[in-house]
Amino acid sequence: MTTHALIKDFQEALGKDNVLGAEADRYAYSYDSAVLEPAVPGVVVRPTDVAGLGKVVKLCNDAGAPLTVRGSGTNLSGGTIPKTGGVVVLTGALNKILEINTEDLYARVEPGVITAKFAAAVQAKGLFYPPDPGSQAVSTLGGNVAENAGGLRGLKYGVTKDYVMGVHFFDTDGELIKAGGRTVKCVTGLNLTGLMVGSEGTLGVLSEIFLKLVPPPAAAKAMMAIFDDVEAASQTVSAIIAAKIVPATLEFLDNFTIRTVEDFSHAGLPIDAKALLLIEVDGHPAMVAEDAAKVEELCRAHGAKRIQVAKDAAERNKVWEARRAALSALARVAPTTVLEDATVPRSQIPAMIKALDGIAAKYKLTIGTFGHAGDGNLHPTILTDKRNAEEWRRVEDAVDEIFDVALALGGTLSGEHGIGLAKAKYLEKETTRGTILYSRRLKKALDPKGILNPGKIMGE
Amino acid sequence: MTTHALIKDFQEALGKDNVLGAEADRYAYSYDSAVLEPAVPGVVVRPTDVAGLGKVVKLCNDAGAPLTVRGSGTNLSGGTIPKTGGVVVLTGALNKILEINTEDLYARVEPGVITAKFAAAVQAKGLFYPPDPGSQAVSTLGGNVAENAGGLRGLKYGVTKDYVMGVHFFDTDGELIKAGGRTVKCVTGLNLTGLMVGSEGTLGVLSEIFLKLVPPPAAAKAMMAIFDDVEAASQTVSAIIAAKIVPATLEFLDNFTIRTVEDFSHAGLPIDAKALLLIEVDGHPAMVAEDAAKVEELCRAHGAKRIQVAKDAAERNKVWEARRAALSALARVAPTTVLEDATVPRSQIPAMIKALDGIAAKYKLTIGTFGHAGDGNLHPTILTDKRNAEEWRRVEDAVDEIFDVALALGGTLSGEHGIGLAKAKYLEKETTRGTILYSRRLKKALDPKGILNPGKIMGE
Repeated sequence: MTTHALIKDFQEALGKDNVLGAEADRYAYSYDSAVLEPAVPGVVVRPTDVAGLGKVVKLCNDAGAPLTVRGSGTNLSGGTIPKTGGVVVLTGALNKILEINTEDLYARVEPGVITAKFAAAVQAKGLFYPPDPGSQAVSTLGGNVAENAGGLRGLKYGVTKDYVMGVHFFDTDGELIKAGGRTVKCVTGLNLTGLMVGSEGTLGVLSEIFLKLVPPPAAAKAMMAIFDDVEAASQTVSAIIAAKIVPATLEFLDNFTIRTVEDFSHAGLPIDAKALLLIEVDGHPAMVAEDAAKVEELCRAHGAKRIQVAKDAAERNKVWEARRAALSALARVAPTTVLEDATVPRSQIPAMIKALDGIAAKYKLTIGTFGHAGDGNLHPTILTDKRNAEEWRRVEDAVDEIFDVALALGGTLSGEHGIGLAKAKYLEKETTRGTILYSRRLKKALDPKGILNPGKIMGE
Repeated sequence: MTTHALIKDFQEALGKDNVLGAEADRYAYSYDSAVLEPAVPGVVVRPTDVAGLGKVVKLCNDAGAPLTVRGSGTNLSGGTIPKTGGVVVLTGALNKILEINTEDLYARVEPGVITAKFAAAVQAKGLFYPPDPGSQAVSTLGGNVAENAGGLRGLKYGVTKDYVMGVHFFDTDGELIKAGGRTVKCVTGLNLTGLMVGSEGTLGVLSEIFLKLVPPPAAAKAMMAIFDDVEAASQTVSAIIAAKIVPATLEFLDNFTIRTVEDFSHAGLPIDAKALLLIEVDGHPAMVAEDAAKVEELCRAHGAKRIQVAKDAAERNKVWEARRAALSALARVAPTTVLEDATVPRSQIPAMIKALDGIAAKYKLTIGTFGHAGDGNLHPTILTDKRNAEEWRRVEDAVDEIFDVALALGGTLSGEHGIGLAKAKYLEKETTRGTILYSRRLKKALDPKGILNPGKIMGE
């Protein structure tokens, strides 16, 4: 499908330097961060402006060539694997922050802007962009929007979709579609902004994103609560929410994760603890002081052995960096790291953690569990070796059971990692057959040739 | 299209009492709150359970009969006018609050639940449902979702879409579609929840809604700032936002609106004021005290003549009730009330108010302006008489110019009232031709016979 003629068209549209056909290049973009088979694209292109991006989409559609847009490839569900080959479109050169408007509290960006760089630029202007996916240091905003990325602050601040005010994108004909914009309130036309968020590149190609900004919290206080007992820690999570405190972050780490992270980051985590809660409250200084005191009290009442309050920003950052390193740390332990993100209503966190223990024992697997306990979004992480066929079967069975338990508890297959290729086959478990058919009809109408990231979300 | 056979099928599915064919009934549901020509439906049906609702949708589709779902008909853009006749489906009997979950901070409701009743039920459980459209005393949650209704609290708390965690709805085949659910984070499948919000009944028929709830603010303080000068008042709005204060509400009323409202509600509004700002800050008591002091200071610095702080809840409610009565009060003045909701980025509020003055003078019209200044969403209200053809032409020209000005200022055609029939013809001004075609392709795929609320949003 990536014929010589198409490659020549790309070269004319983008310049030869921005069309990568060498084997090494093609292999480099054949996989992402999910544990799935790679698929090698026919060619990789790198538009350097939005007009070039639009041309690429039209050329692909005219040629019937599949097109997978790729930010930084941090995707954990295979969303950026070019399953049927074709063209990988890199957004790395579309990395302009077009506007940060401090009066009207919004920003406009191109899709290839790095999340953390954007957050820093916003902070420098005295404002705050809350979504903070684990991969923020390298992930792109376009990828965040396509996957509706979550992060540590979901509990209080919501996820990416809560900050997308509008999008511009190309349809398969290369026509520019505009939805939403600069105003907090906008009901002009169908909510195509909402539809595009989390659509994993299956319905159009983002060219510009309007993001909501908020005033930063005036104060913050972070603490670490150390538990001898996993259940006590998980009950504490529910107790904090039930007390109507909404921490900015409320993270859980089990003993295996604590030890692995400490070995990697040397942040001073207590390696003998059975579980840790990392909690940060933010807002008005008086509220922060009160909420922190209440959280401390609740932790103690539920059996925390020790509580360490971060003395300053440096100490606070050290702990959060350690937490953010959890996936990297776990990934060192075994050849294959299966990071799940089945999510449950917050009150079901104790039940979910208990079930995960049972599943690890039943299938004789090492599962490190950590994650955003405050919003019900845990990351049970199975450390394994995919080359061991027998063990891998047990891993697959364990993953199936994790999904079944999450759904039985009123939860969802994926809190923030997306469906991609990895979970498409499970979709009907949570929704209905009709839901999948409805989604496929929608997809077919907007992408009649099926060129936009084929196979993702809705299966074939 | 509403043949005898179809009516018989409805009677069998719903019982005879729930199929209304009398002329009086049909005329009663031929219009809504928009200033548009009524259209009389062939029959009106009233399902009493969700299964009945699904049957109605399937029967309509099988017969090719247009179907317009109606909550309380408070729509201001013609979204509930059955433009091509057919079947009006009333949701009034689908009014069960299915669950209010105080541990996991969500509720499940049927579409016909009245907004204010729901908010009160949530409050009784110690939680808070912020969206408060002007029509909340009678509007339904299903209507709010279909229109993505806004309200007075949009500035700080967002609009309906920010609270919809999931929806169940029927597609045209009567199949149940499920999207989203009970978890704060959910990326399972396409974001059909987002797509349904604001889709004005054009893509499916809502049967159940999952709504996010939040802890209520611990304290609130309301004040009224009285200005001798409209521009000073509008500049104050920008100054408050620029100071990074986010009030729960920040409302503007011009002198004409003040006098009209006071005449109607006798709330003690200062009828000689050129403009009023009604401001409420809420949150932690310490923050409320500080923010209120800062707001007062900013109002004075920008020339407020007087500031009245509400002494207690009763005084506070009196003022807010007066504000909420603005539309009813204005509607008494002239036979026809054209309530617009063109919206601009907040910093453009002074420019927009100035432009509205110019438009009123240019077209020799009475325009009362009030609205949610804090989020850029003003409601210029033209008082006229549609039977006066010459004046009505001037009204139409003025409305055109209001849209042009809003768009030139970076704003939108509609902040919260929807596109419906009223603004479908303007859609291309804000978006692109491609955007309309994309939306129509989507609609055609999900509603091949075009039975779902024909003519709304995307035109024919």
